[in-house]
Amino acid sequence: MTQFEDKYSEYRKAFEEILTEFCNKLNCKPKILSESLKYSLQLGGKRVRPVLMLAAGELLGINRKKLLNFALALELIHTYSLIHDDLPEMDNDDFRRGKPSNHKVFGVGNAVLAGDGLLNTAYSILLRECFNGEENVSAAKYICDCAGISGMIAGQSADLLHENDGEVDEDILNFIYENKTAKLISAAVVTPSILCGGKFYSELSAFGRDIGFLFQITDDILDVEGSFENLGKSVGKDNAEGKYTEVRLYGLDGCKLKADLLTDKCLKILESFDGDTEFLRELTYFVRQRIN
Amino acid sequence: MTQFEDKYSEYRKAFEEILTEFCNKLNCKPKILSESLKYSLQLGGKRVRPVLMLAAGELLGINRKKLLNFALALELIHTYSLIHDDLPEMDNDDFRRGKPSNHKVFGVGNAVLAGDGLLNTAYSILLRECFNGEENVSAAKYICDCAGISGMIAGQSADLLHENDGEVDEDILNFIYENKTAKLISAAVVTPSILCGGKFYSELSAFGRDIGFLFQITDDILDVEGSFENLGKSVGKDNAEGKYTEVRLYGLDGCKLKADLLTDKCLKILESFDGDTEFLRELTYFVRQRIN
Repeated sequence: MTQFEDKYSEYRKAFEEILTEFCNKLNCKPKILSESLKYSLQLGGKRVRPVLMLAAGELLGINRKKLLNFALALELIHTYSLIHDDLPEMDNDDFRRGKPSNHKVFGVGNAVLAGDGLLNTAYSILLRECFNGEENVSAAKYICDCAGISGMIAGQSADLLHENDGEVDEDILNFIYENKTAKLISAAVVTPSILCGGKFYSELSAFGRDIGFLFQITDDILDVEGSFENLGKSVGKDNAEGKYTEVRLYGLDGCKLKADLLTDKCLKILESFDGDTEFLRELTYFVRQRIN
Repeated sequence: MTQFEDKYSEYRKAFEEILTEFCNKLNCKPKILSESLKYSLQLGGKRVRPVLMLAAGELLGINRKKLLNFALALELIHTYSLIHDDLPEMDNDDFRRGKPSNHKVFGVGNAVLAGDGLLNTAYSILLRECFNGEENVSAAKYICDCAGISGMIAGQSADLLHENDGEVDEDILNFIYENKTAKLISAAVVTPSILCGGKFYSELSAFGRDIGFLFQITDDILDVEGSFENLGKSVGKDNAEGKYTEVRLYGLDGCKLKADLLTDKCLKILESFDGDTEFLRELTYFVRQRIN
């Protein structure tokens, strides 16, 4: 393994430990409810948001323990959004990470409740952190607003609304990418900043936004060039369903160029930091070159 | 109007004012998202939870202003639960308060997002309150847990799971009623107690639980004896769909007896308070005798 891979797996392991602990303790009744929550949480995935949060925290010199519950809450929010997004009347995806989607296993009704349950539990975790001072309240509020009706939910709503538009409008596309994807990814790196009084706040906001856009564009590229084997979900769906994507607006080559430009922007922002940004630099390349 | 009706409409008006202000400011994009949130929030309803909260607050001598945002958050949570509960794969209700359900107007995908949006916004409101001290954090956390996977969502999940059971088990029925209905109603009266250091905490918890059960039992009775005109939703559905209800277990007369016993329990608890409990006494009768 490269040094980057080592570090990535170390962050990921730290996060998986707290996630496993959380899942082991999760035994709410009825059993189908806890099982459906655990099912989606334990499907795996890259855990990009928690890894980003822990890496940004290390850059700022924050004790990792202070961050783990925020990372857990963020991953719960992300997971709820995938469950609801996969529903038949939303993106209608039967597979997620190579396994049947939540609603394919537990039924639509239970999948709605599993999503609700994860979202609500994320706030239970965040509210527990709010006893530890105002910076924690600020961080929790920031995550909440990134996930909410002026954030991720607005992006999902616009995505659904414009699904069958004949033409792709650049402003609308940017609105969708910014809200649906970039804001929650941005929250991962901004949370540590808020927890230490706003250190590097504007740099981390900008970095989070750009790597969030980069993440969504590479997602679009993978929908065209990727495989079910690597992605664990259906490919070619965006185009078939008339989704609003950069690929439709700029073409595949245009998207790759945009992805390269965003990569450069991310690296440029990282240059302005004092600390050791090697991992975040490598992570940016990783997002650009990912195959899943 | 009786003195009780006067007071009820005064509490309700105070709440409707802050709700209207909230709705007026709600202009997130895309428009369909804010419209779908407002649609369900403005369908009306008795606003029992906010009224209970303001009344309990007055009994404890809390400044009403301290409570209004908590009442708003609670009503948002209640409203999200109705939207998701009405979905085709849940209770499949086409009408709510005499108007088409959210998903009948905006489609299932948008209704899922409207529910998500209301739930998330409730936490945005609660987290804003968390800047005002630890008691507020405790109150927000309490509401969150009543609404969550060991509360309302657990109740919904059990309700869905046991929908077609041949026989009704009393323990399961109590679990459903307690979690699906009583916990969030209880949160309405417990929140003011937490905000003033736990004054009358156990009395208000017990009162909230019993009036919550009473509310659910009268709901079941109305499903048999009520009319669409008064209720604004379909009647006779519980039985037709094999729902778990007290009516199935105890029969209609048995339910009425139980409702009367719960009424007495509520009144008995209120006797143990120092302050003026006249309104809460009348409210208990009101819940018992309601026709909608």
